[in-house]
Amino acid sequence: MSPIAPSSGMNRRVLLSTLALLATLFGPLLPVSAPAQTATAGGLLPSWNDGPAKHAIFDFVRATIDQSSPIYVSPEDRIAVFDQDGTLWVEHPMYTQVIYCLERVPAVVAKRPELKNIEPFKTVLSGNREAMAKLSMRDLEKILAATLTGMSVDEFNAEAKRWMETARHARWNRPYTELVYQPMLEVLRYLRNNAYKTYIVTGGGQDFVRVYAEKVYGIPPEQVVGTAGGTKYGYGKDGKPFLTKEPKLILNDNNAGKPEGIHLMIGRRPYVAFGNSTGDRQMLEWTGAGAGARLKMLVLHDDATREYAYGPAQGLPDTKVGTFTPALYDEAKSKGWTVISMKNDWRRIFALE
Amino acid sequence: MSPIAPSSGMNRRVLLSTLALLATLFGPLLPVSAPAQTATAGGLLPSWNDGPAKHAIFDFVRATIDQSSPIYVSPEDRIAVFDQDGTLWVEHPMYTQVIYCLERVPAVVAKRPELKNIEPFKTVLSGNREAMAKLSMRDLEKILAATLTGMSVDEFNAEAKRWMETARHARWNRPYTELVYQPMLEVLRYLRNNAYKTYIVTGGGQDFVRVYAEKVYGIPPEQVVGTAGGTKYGYGKDGKPFLTKEPKLILNDNNAGKPEGIHLMIGRRPYVAFGNSTGDRQMLEWTGAGAGARLKMLVLHDDATREYAYGPAQGLPDTKVGTFTPALYDEAKSKGWTVISMKNDWRRIFALE
Repeated sequence: MSPIAPSSGMNRRVLLSTLALLATLFGPLLPVSAPAQTATAGGLLPSWNDGPAKHAIFDFVRATIDQSSPIYVSPEDRIAVFDQDGTLWVEHPMYTQVIYCLERVPAVVAKRPELKNIEPFKTVLSGNREAMAKLSMRDLEKILAATLTGMSVDEFNAEAKRWMETARHARWNRPYTELVYQPMLEVLRYLRNNAYKTYIVTGGGQDFVRVYAEKVYGIPPEQVVGTAGGTKYGYGKDGKPFLTKEPKLILNDNNAGKPEGIHLMIGRRPYVAFGNSTGDRQMLEWTGAGAGARLKMLVLHDDATREYAYGPAQGLPDTKVGTFTPALYDEAKSKGWTVISMKNDWRRIFALE
Repeated sequence: MSPIAPSSGMNRRVLLSTLALLATLFGPLLPVSAPAQTATAGGLLPSWNDGPAKHAIFDFVRATIDQSSPIYVSPEDRIAVFDQDGTLWVEHPMYTQVIYCLERVPAVVAKRPELKNIEPFKTVLSGNREAMAKLSMRDLEKILAATLTGMSVDEFNAEAKRWMETARHARWNRPYTELVYQPMLEVLRYLRNNAYKTYIVTGGGQDFVRVYAEKVYGIPPEQVVGTAGGTKYGYGKDGKPFLTKEPKLILNDNNAGKPEGIHLMIGRRPYVAFGNSTGDRQMLEWTGAGAGARLKMLVLHDDATREYAYGPAQGLPDTKVGTFTPALYDEAKSKGWTVISMKNDWRRIFALE
């Protein structure tokens, strides 16, 4: 689901329930004891335990880079796509970009004081979480539009970069960019070392993710595909051109929007796709429908101790973000997609444990 | 200007005058004597004569790859963008993609016979050039929509590929893909050899250009930015997913749409931009407005013998496609953009001379 395109793909209940989690977010920090892990040196994918998931990755890569293999893939066709939220980094208690938008409201109101007493900005400024949880979809759209559009691309980049450097996840008290999954960083590197071009294909805002993707994932801006709004070319008083971010949706990169976005931005069918929710279903289907072998993987959040547990394995209600529904689980099983158990397949979750 | 988005950027007079040239296109083939050129072996950019244009390219590349240079550019930032029509290949007597659309009409009507007696298809089928020259913009839009949308992405790719292999340019009786400018192929290679990532940024259809760009220019699909329509994800009777090309414009990659498209698809400001018409103006401005040195080049068509002469140097009317207007010429001079004279700067025009 998309932080910047709530009307087109977002389940209202989901978003409101995430807003209800604001109490957790802004509440007192709970110390979390991460289990001590000895980083084993040497070997590929060192943060992965031996098991079917690790073997699926190894077997696929080895076979597709071996020219004598029947499923050899020529280097220029080696495209690998990764969902971000819940696949490469933590998506609970809510999408990082939604937190960004809510936290940007005071700064936006400071620049546009006429918003101060207007809803929904008034409610967000009040900090009254009960009232915030009652915000309508239309209210949320206004918040996203006000915080993600109307400024130049350069201004947005500078603001988002500054925020990413200072904001902290409430549970771990660490920058969000440190809450990326170490096993997935290893997969990205392993694929790139074998000439795979790695892409992020996210429901999150393309411009937002591009701000940190190169530094955090080693993925350059041109390999980030995300929900994208239009921009408008214009000239400043000094005659210098600039691009303004417009509240006009060009690509809603969720669900069916993911293969559509892949076609628009990449123009080739991927050989590798990693996701974790219903928003990634069509991307995995599209990848899997290509000729020859394709690697399709789904991350299952089943580790309440080290991260979070939600989805079919836990029988949790689907009111949380990043829904890995029972239907998706069934499709994965029937189509031979490999489910990654965070609890069993990952030796460690974060780089800094 | 865009073959698939005539209403948003296309000068009606321009298109109609190109239609009037159909007589030339489908007329008897005129033998053209290409001046004999001795290919000089050795050296970079061998098809370039010594002169300010060749030196501008050399000086820029040498300085930006030299770590001790004040204008050094780190490899990940080395983005170079190229217009296609009139910059990388011949755009006269009309855009290749417009010819494709007109020539596709009989096949489309064969599949949809109800169009046979409906305008504008009836007129195109008649072959009456006088009548075709009178087609309205709305008529032309219908032709483009009927020939570029409504089929699956795979079907379109197969059709366009087949056409490119068999279609011939009326003047040279050669495939269009052989009418690419040899000096520009050398620039593309020279830049790539120095870690520049080369992109096409064209008003032409993104899907159309992607069909041959890798083979012809060494530019992969993901590095082709063009005018793009939406696609729609769906399932066949066999349950297999496919993408259908929709008559919905996502990106009109002309004029201001070029920097907007560069932001959408690349997310970085280029260091190098080559164009040849007013449709490239904003792309060159946007490139030039970045910090540090940037290379901005405009191809001037001033060689009536070996190719075509049109634009300010010839004082020709601006009724032809690819208008290099006097105003653009002035802007180039005032902003230090380098104008490439095809007549003087290019030792040869095509690879096969």
